[in-house]
Amino acid sequence: MGVNPSAALGVSTEPNPRIPADHPGVTDLFAVLAYGEISAFYRLAEEAKLSPTLRGKVAVAKMAAAEMAHFDTLEQALSARGVDVFDAMAPFVRALDAYHDSTDPSTWLESMVKFYVGDGIAADFYTVLADALAPEVATVVRDVLAETSHSEFVIEEVRRAVAENRSERDRLTLWGRRLLGEAITQAQYVMAQRDELTELVLVATGDLTGIAALFERMQASHAERMRVLGLG
Amino acid sequence: MGVNPSAALGVSTEPNPRIPADHPGVTDLFAVLAYGEISAFYRLAEEAKLSPTLRGKVAVAKMAAAEMAHFDTLEQALSARGVDVFDAMAPFVRALDAYHDSTDPSTWLESMVKFYVGDGIAADFYTVLADALAPEVATVVRDVLAETSHSEFVIEEVRRAVAENRSERDRLTLWGRRLLGEAITQAQYVMAQRDELTELVLVATGDLTGIAALFERMQASHAERMRVLGLG
Repeated sequence: MGVNPSAALGVSTEPNPRIPADHPGVTDLFAVLAYGEISAFYRLAEEAKLSPTLRGKVAVAKMAAAEMAHFDTLEQALSARGVDVFDAMAPFVRALDAYHDSTDPSTWLESMVKFYVGDGIAADFYTVLADALAPEVATVVRDVLAETSHSEFVIEEVRRAVAENRSERDRLTLWGRRLLGEAITQAQYVMAQRDELTELVLVATGDLTGIAALFERMQASHAERMRVLGLG
Repeated sequence: MGVNPSAALGVSTEPNPRIPADHPGVTDLFAVLAYGEISAFYRLAEEAKLSPTLRGKVAVAKMAAAEMAHFDTLEQALSARGVDVFDAMAPFVRALDAYHDSTDPSTWLESMVKFYVGDGIAADFYTVLADALAPEVATVVRDVLAETSHSEFVIEEVRRAVAENRSERDRLTLWGRRLLGEAITQAQYVMAQRDELTELVLVATGDLTGIAALFERMQASHAERMRVLGLG
């Protein structure tokens, strides 16, 4: 995953560790991120078929490989906690698969927008958590969310396509809106299922009002990303 | 790619550089290896669907990511020679796609055997070339052919499956034989098309008799790999 630090959310980016490294929610956090990388890898590899050029396919293969490097980081971090990555990921398979199934791109441009926007939404959400984590675990989360050069490829690809095609722009704008809705739905579903993760989010955001405020800021940040892509 | 150094071929592994770094065949060699990595990446990602477990899918995703790391190495090596990787790969797309189309695995075990055996055949062939290359280009070739820990996963997966299933063993033995035949057919097709690469192979092997001897040794090395998998 990559794209967008919490700075874009207009919230304080000063880390203020309030969650100890041994909080059980940290294992859940690493695990949901790990399954996110695996499912993103396979979705990207599948969607590369939509690319009109070998250049596009290679760019996507590089993005997918970067997801696996992040998976390795998370697998090691879980292993250091004495946790098997496959056991830990199991509770999150259904929700993440549901997100991908409900946002299956039908065109190359939809796939590109999903990569950029989806990564951005995830980074917004998880970076707020990272800011509340003990430094040794926050580092892991920030590493796997770090923006990569791949987003530049995506931005160029989408901007060029929509600059000269208004109906494509309108279509992709609606697509971006749907991505945000589905991502928030699934994030809420995950939290409702996992008490440890919910507690971690509550500590990071303050309270239920804090969570609502976070989701509002995520919407603002999403709108900004859509503008970067030449959409909305 | 990984698996099997030229030592297994019973030929001298003492490098004896006879081909200068600026030989035009070196660009072809890097390019065919680069397209080999890309096509292997997408085949692996596709075949991961055949995996009965998430553990298998993750193992395959790691193999695929390793292919992309090799692609990056080759892209940089070509770039250092002032060559665009996409232009350079174009002549090899048809032959490598034909190899993959003619050896499309229909089961998870066929996919695993193809990964191990196909990588081994390629490594046998290209390592002999590397031994004749100037050190600065030989290093690139050896880097991208280096054996990885992934082959251990494949060996275990196949050995376990065939130990208790004779008909599966017979079926995969035939499959391995077909892989070798198709790989040699396509290698000859590539050489017939690319004079620069043919010259490089001729210098590395000595003459046409040397090429024939190389293919014979590749068969012996292939038989050894099949034994390692518990086949043949």
